Amino acid sequence: MSDGRSGIRIAVINGPNLNLLGSREPEIYGSATLADIETRLRTVGTEIGATLTFVQENGEGALVDAVQQLMGAADGAIINAGAYSHSSLAIRDALVAIRVPFVEVHLSNVHAREPERRQLVLASAAIGVICGLGAYGYEAALRALVQRLRA
Amino acid sequence: MSDGRSGIRIAVINGPNLNLLGSREPEIYGSATLADIETRLRTVGTEIGATLTFVQENGEGALVDAVQQLMGAADGAIINAGAYSHSSLAIRDALVAIRVPFVEVHLSNVHAREPERRQLVLASAAIGVICGLGAYGYEAALRALVQRLRA
Amino acid sequence: MSDGRSGIRIAVINGPNLNLLGSREPEIYGSATLADIETRLRTVGTEIGATLTFVQENGEGALVDAVQQLMGAADGAIINAGAYSHSSLAIRDALVAIRVPFVEVHLSNVHAREPERRQLVLASAAIGVICGLGAYGYEAALRALVQRLRA
Amino acid sequence: MSDGRSGIRIAVINGPNLNLLGSREPEIYGSATLADIETRLRTVGTEIGATLTFVQENGEGALVDAVQQLMGAADGAIINAGAYSHSSLAIRDALVAIRVPFVEVHLSNVHAREPERRQLVLASAAIGVICGLGAYGYEAALRALVQRLRA
Amino acid sequence: MSDGRSGIRIAVINGPNLNLLGSREPEIYGSATLADIETRLRTVGTEIGATLTFVQENGEGALVDAVQQLMGAADGAIINAGAYSHSSLAIRDALVAIRVPFVEVHLSNVHAREPERRQLVLASAAIGVICGLGAYGYEAALRALVQRLRA
Amino acid sequence: MSDGRSGIRIAVINGPNLNLLGSREPEIYGSATLADIETRLRTVGTEIGATLTFVQENGEGALVDAVQQLMGAADGAIINAGAYSHSSLAIRDALVAIRVPFVEVHLSNVHAREPERRQLVLASAAIGVICGLGAYGYEAALRALVQRLRA
Amino acid sequence: MSDGRSGIRIAVINGPNLNLLGSREPEIYGSATLADIETRLRTVGTEIGATLTFVQENGEGALVDAVQQLMGAADGAIINAGAYSHSSLAIRDALVAIRVPFVEVHLSNVHAREPERRQLVLASAAIGVICGLGAYGYEAALRALVQRLRA
Amino acid sequence: MSDGRSGIRIAVINGPNLNLLGSREPEIYGSATLADIETRLRTVGTEIGATLTFVQENGEGALVDAVQQLMGAADGAIINAGAYSHSSLAIRDALVAIRVPFVEVHLSNVHAREPERRQLVLASAAIGVICGLGAYGYEAALRALVQRLRA
Amino acid sequence: MSDGRSGIRIAVINGPNLNLLGSREPEIYGSATLADIETRLRTVGTEIGATLTFVQENGEGALVDAVQQLMGAADGAIINAGAYSHSSLAIRDALVAIRVPFVEVHLSNVHAREPERRQLVLASAAIGVICGLGAYGYEAALRALVQRLRA
Amino acid sequence: MSDGRSGIRIAVINGPNLNLLGSREPEIYGSATLADIETRLRTVGTEIGATLTFVQENGEGALVDAVQQLMGAADGAIINAGAYSHSSLAIRDALVAIRVPFVEVHLSNVHAREPERRQLVLASAAIGVICGLGAYGYEAALRALVQRLRA
Amino acid sequence: MSDGRSGIRIAVINGPNLNLLGSREPEIYGSATLADIETRLRTVGTEIGATLTFVQENGEGALVDAVQQLMGAADGAIINAGAYSHSSLAIRDALVAIRVPFVEVHLSNVHAREPERRQLVLASAAIGVICGLGAYGYEAALRALVQRLRA
Amino acid sequence: MSDGRSGIRIAVINGPNLNLLGSREPEIYGSATLADIETRLRTVGTEIGATLTFVQENGEGALVDAVQQLMGAADGAIINAGAYSHSSLAIRDALVAIRVPFVEVHLSNVHAREPERRQLVLASAAIGVICGLGAYGYEAALRALVQRLRA
Repeated sequence: MSDGRSGIRIAVINGPNLNLLGSREPEIYGSATLADIETRLRTVGTEIGATLTFVQENGEGALVDAVQQLMGAADGAIINAGAYSHSSLAIRDALVAIRVPFVEVHLSNVHAREPERRQLVLASAAIGVICGLGAYGYEAALRALVQRLRA
Repeated sequence: MSDGRSGIRIAVINGPNLNLLGSREPEIYGSATLADIETRLRTVGTEIGATLTFVQENGEGALVDAVQQLMGAADGAIINAGAYSHSSLAIRDALVAIRVPFVEVHLSNVHAREPERRQLVLASAAIGVICGLGAYGYEAALRALVQRLRA
Repeated sequence: MSDGRSGIRIAVINGPNLNLLGSREPEIYGSATLADIETRLRTVGTEIGATLTFVQENGEGALVDAVQQLMGAADGAIINAGAYSHSSLAIRDALVAIRVPFVEVHLSNVHAREPERRQLVLASAAIGVICGLGAYGYEAALRALVQRLRA
Repeated sequence: MSDGRSGIRIAVINGPNLNLLGSREPEIYGSATLADIETRLRTVGTEIGATLTFVQENGEGALVDAVQQLMGAADGAIINAGAYSHSSLAIRDALVAIRVPFVEVHLSNVHAREPERRQLVLASAAIGVICGLGAYGYEAALRALVQRLRA
Repeated sequence: MSDGRSGIRIAVINGPNLNLLGSREPEIYGSATLADIETRLRTVGTEIGATLTFVQENGEGALVDAVQQLMGAADGAIINAGAYSHSSLAIRDALVAIRVPFVEVHLSNVHAREPERRQLVLASAAIGVICGLGAYGYEAALRALVQRLRA
Repeated sequence: MSDGRSGIRIAVINGPNLNLLGSREPEIYGSATLADIETRLRTVGTEIGATLTFVQENGEGALVDAVQQLMGAADGAIINAGAYSHSSLAIRDALVAIRVPFVEVHLSNVHAREPERRQLVLASAAIGVICGLGAYGYEAALRALVQRLRA
Repeated sequence: MSDGRSGIRIAVINGPNLNLLGSREPEIYGSATLADIETRLRTVGTEIGATLTFVQENGEGALVDAVQQLMGAADGAIINAGAYSHSSLAIRDALVAIRVPFVEVHLSNVHAREPERRQLVLASAAIGVICGLGAYGYEAALRALVQRLRA
Repeated sequence: MSDGRSGIRIAVINGPNLNLLGSREPEIYGSATLADIETRLRTVGTEIGATLTFVQENGEGALVDAVQQLMGAADGAIINAGAYSHSSLAIRDALVAIRVPFVEVHLSNVHAREPERRQLVLASAAIGVICGLGAYGYEAALRALVQRLRA
Repeated sequence: MSDGRSGIRIAVINGPNLNLLGSREPEIYGSATLADIETRLRTVGTEIGATLTFVQENGEGALVDAVQQLMGAADGAIINAGAYSHSSLAIRDALVAIRVPFVEVHLSNVHAREPERRQLVLASAAIGVICGLGAYGYEAALRALVQRLRA
Repeated sequence: MSDGRSGIRIAVINGPNLNLLGSREPEIYGSATLADIETRLRTVGTEIGATLTFVQENGEGALVDAVQQLMGAADGAIINAGAYSHSSLAIRDALVAIRVPFVEVHLSNVHAREPERRQLVLASAAIGVICGLGAYGYEAALRALVQRLRA
Repeated sequence: MSDGRSGIRIAVINGPNLNLLGSREPEIYGSATLADIETRLRTVGTEIGATLTFVQENGEGALVDAVQQLMGAADGAIINAGAYSHSSLAIRDALVAIRVPFVEVHLSNVHAREPERRQLVLASAAIGVICGLGAYGYEAALRALVQRLRA
Repeated sequence: MSDGRSGIRIAVINGPNLNLLGSREPEIYGSATLADIETRLRTVGTEIGATLTFVQENGEGALVDAVQQLMGAADGAIINAGAYSHSSLAIRDALVAIRVPFVEVHLSNVHAREPERRQLVLASAAIGVICGLGAYGYEAALRALVQRLRA
């Protein structure tokens, strides 16, 4: 699905309030900004032969749009849909529709927070889920995804 | 509310991921595209004296906007709010606010799918609901709506 | 499954209290009687090449009997099981056993009534469901069913 | 946080369908328009030394954006998130992230309406909640907020 | 609705297993047979000017039939639907359809038995309910009903 | 338990807000006052050989006191605990402790009102329950109780 | 309760849709017909000295009738009430009333099917339950029942 | 309902433990005593032409009594029923019976506390609710109430 | 908090129906009267240097009053709130307000009784709970409380 | 899977407290000991050509071990996991992993006991379930299992 | 059941993680080790004539074994089953089987902790429960148990 | 906590049925055996300076033991408690007691399986959770854990 030149194409999609990373409740989400995470992921991508694109949206509909645009444009995705992870049937429908494999990531350990964050609506359509490992979770997701796409 | 020339004005509003019709899970949603459905509805509209307008939006807020714009611009509506059908109080509030009668349509039989699709939040404000009849459901909704508006 | 002479054979099965149509709570169920609906359906049936048979029963067991008798005798069915729609596993079992495709119809919009009417026990075995469109719902069901059987 | 010239800076954020105030179900929401409410609030603001800004959005994502933009731009907020008040974890996350104190307002008495309106998802992050007092609720929220910011 | 000669017409409808009264679990239901209760009720009926008719059926559909036949034939009814009291939407629909006022009676105190007997599905359509007073409950229902019909 | 002279001793205990009968929501509770009901009950008591005492209290603790004082002072009781009927374990404990048989009465049909009134906490300790028959319910309770105490 | 000549009298009662056995979903219910099961049971009955009678009914009321007729006519019963097993309080009431010991049988393993089939309403009144063993389940029930009646 | 001399008559009713204000968990309820609140309210009352009366009771029955005494004696009420706000059907019944409009007040933000405090049993009968604004909540309630009574 | 002369001051508060101890359901509550328990506790109090006071009230409000009066008057409390233990937020609020440590006692084993007695509303504010040990439970509570106050 | 010499290999696995059979609550579990049941099963095994092995363990992990050891060592199993039947996902996982067909047995009728015994966690992986037939249930399970393995 | 020499035989059974007492979360469980508790209990045992044995196990099956071994070997037991207290039907079955009276103890106040610790599965089979009194709870349980066994 | 020579000490604990990896449902759990996973982890451990120990147990108590033995012997842990992950309070208590940081791993995506596997009882005590990434999940957990311990 991806030629040798550009490598495997991975989209990284972040949802509401993740643009605030670094300043938003650092005791929960850490001090790394979204730009820091992108920089680290690009480094890893170069190492393992993956080309990355990044999107961040606060709107549920904008995230549906972003997911739809992956069709034909990405071989895999890493998704942290933020608060919409716990309710959005529309994003799940889009993910199911495009048939692009994805790994779900959460910076914090959602299982140790409020009960409403324990429901993961997108997760049943994912390959797997990583939570609580901070920025490293994105890196692990990237490695797992590329490894699976190469298999 | 509608003069003799333009006929009865019916708005057809489609929600998230319905722009993908035809390619999205055709075993569930069929192979007709949204354009196919619009073409068929325009033919029926011409036959029964109804002028149709079409909107498709992936965002919940954009759908609230679309519903609000029906006031004074449509005599009735056909609405398939997709995944938002199962949760959106905001769209229901807009539908109740504008007092335009509408029929709710679903391409697939929501009662034979996941439990969360069995909850229909908009339906209590609708005239009625048609599901599982594929593209024909829109046509039946159009005929029923025009018949009721003429009564 | 149906030869050219007799056309497609469609059974219309109505459940408890539908024999009272016309006099029973007309503000909910409309003023058409069951005979009016049958007359209209026969007209449509003639138009589209379908032969219709009609049954109305107040008993759950009698409805199970009626459904069983469709085997080999009908190509499709339209079913409004009235109050049993919301609870009868026995009728659903019969419908599943005979493997005759059917559309479920309700005169009123069950989604806008008491909570116990929002549970549709038969619907998961149906092609689709139409509710709230009054007598026209039967006609739309007939057209959809014949269209599907011809496809 | 606010210099002597401009006074205390208060943002007033309104959610879906509140742009329809005055025409939307006046028996529930009253006949005052959103512009009427803004005019009254500006008068009170002048009286008590508060500078007001106003936003109204129908989209959940647009409201998340609006809340995020309060950081450094407002000393307090009055929020009526309309239908999203009952479900939006994303807006609550944004409110928690920006650490700007806010009072939640509802025009109607949500406790006397449908059960789904009794759940207030944002309220646990608010200073307090006022509902059922119509347009006066905004005024009381403004006075309470300024009084607390001055304390 | 009832002429002077025949008096007020009251139908007494009993449901499943009440034909076994006297032999069935007498420690719960007492030793009076259904015939004993009828005899007592006829005596009271004569005293207060009411003509009584009696039906007992074990089938839900047969009870729906019996209720439908009250239209035009009874001025009021006393109904002990036995086990169907706790589940039958079909019988409730029939009772609502015929608009004949009725009192619900249970021989035993349903509130002191299994949880499933605490749900009374018909009761919301009744004038009132009497339970736990044994055969006397029917008599009290008859007197209350006639008193109300005379008022 | 009761000598020939004074007849059977029956206590009639009424709970919160029943002192307002006649003026309180007469469309639900009727126009008879509590005094009217007492007068009628005394007449029936004289007829059937029962001596009556009456208590009305708005407090749960006062009703517990009143129930406790029945020990040795009453052969049976008629209890309408008003709103406490739906929650008071303390009154049920008192009723169970004194071992005096009682019939529970409600003026309105609690099964046709709000869901919280469908829970009857005292009823499992009662002989039986009468609801929805207005003031006549007390009379029927009195007759049933005396009949049972004589048996 | 049974003389030496006729042996122990066992009634075998089957409920809705069991008349379709053999053709109904054979992957679930097997290919044996009800007649095959009866033949096998008669052979076993002869072997162990039991006289068998058979009833199959699709109606709940007809099953209540059938159960009532066991009084004095059967020493034990084997009951497969089909879909009514999961809801019928009326059949359970009849079984409790007649005091004839019975074993409940299901052809399929109800615990491995839809959630609504996991509720067994009759079972609390049975000696025991056998499910998932197909036609052999009836034979085992017969042997267990006769063994217990002989003990 | 109120003559010119005495102004509008407003009763302020406080429930259990509010007599402890000032010393009771000041981090939740603030340091103002109930007397401080009364003093402030009297000042505002004088300003806007309202005569105030005050009641504080720890008992549910005593609060029912206090509410009943408002009939004919008050034009409106401000009620903080403390812990009974979350459970008391008896106080709600009294409030509904007397038909005096009232505003419900809570010092703390009940939506940010234990789950049992999120249920507001009286609120469905109120004009509106104010919570979390401390002593100012009473003042806002008074102004809103008088404004509405004057309208 | 307690001088050397009077010893540690412990209040023993008993709730509804505990005044009936000895005659009330002795198979559950034992034959000791409340006076017997008081006598025994005074003996133990003398032994371990504790001065005891006793209150018993049937009313929830009276118990709130009694709890409030502990402030400054008791160093610790033993509380058996009877039936209110399972529901009273008002008593819990009072207990939290006064900050006097207390042990909750129940004569019977509430975990082996009706489900509604398994909810212990006060217990989360207590040091601990003792149930099912009869009158000895009070003694153990006294010893534990004094031991902790001395520590 | 089993050669002619050793016959079909059936493992009989019993869980916690079944070693106490005979002395443990004989009114529920009968007077047969586990050894009695084994003796009877060996006799039947000899008759029908099955070789039996027996395990009884009180620990959940030990039962997981026992189930794992069936792989390659048994052609079928009879399992009574006692109290773990109602909760053990670990034993179900083991049963699913080894792919050895099994029948679940309970001595008592679990459907007539406490609610927590009505949940059968292993049963969805079983061929079928027998309960309430005492020791005979094992024999019937053995015959059914061998019959199925031979088919 | 216990001869004069050895006194009353009491077994003290502790469950998972109680071997860590002293080092495990001392702010919840206190600083006493299990050995400290045993020493104190032996002292009390000597004083009141009880011989003690101690068991601590981390496994549910091992605790079932330990409970079974009490038969004939202990006159009473004190049980703190730790985390299994909230779920183990197997341990409850063993306790019911052996018919040895026992008191349940918890060091911490389980009613003030996570919701899952509020369910006490063993408690319905116990004489009573003590929680929150730390190590003293064992002592009180011992005294209560011996007192009851002597009565 | 770990000297320079041996590196960081990480324990890898696997629960029930994980010894079957490779043969157990490979379509869910993959074809790697537990030994394969251990080999891979040792390689990574060597690379990043971590010394690994491995435990696999089928019993809940044995897992509690294994967790307790980590105190002083491991700097971090990777835990896949298999089926016990969804229910074991005892293992969670042990993990909380020892205060050793751990990452939870699941081979399959538990969010896409049966509902009972969506509850993760241990996870609230973990740093984070990885699921659905197969054997790679362990590697990612190891890298994340060591990275955090070094930070």
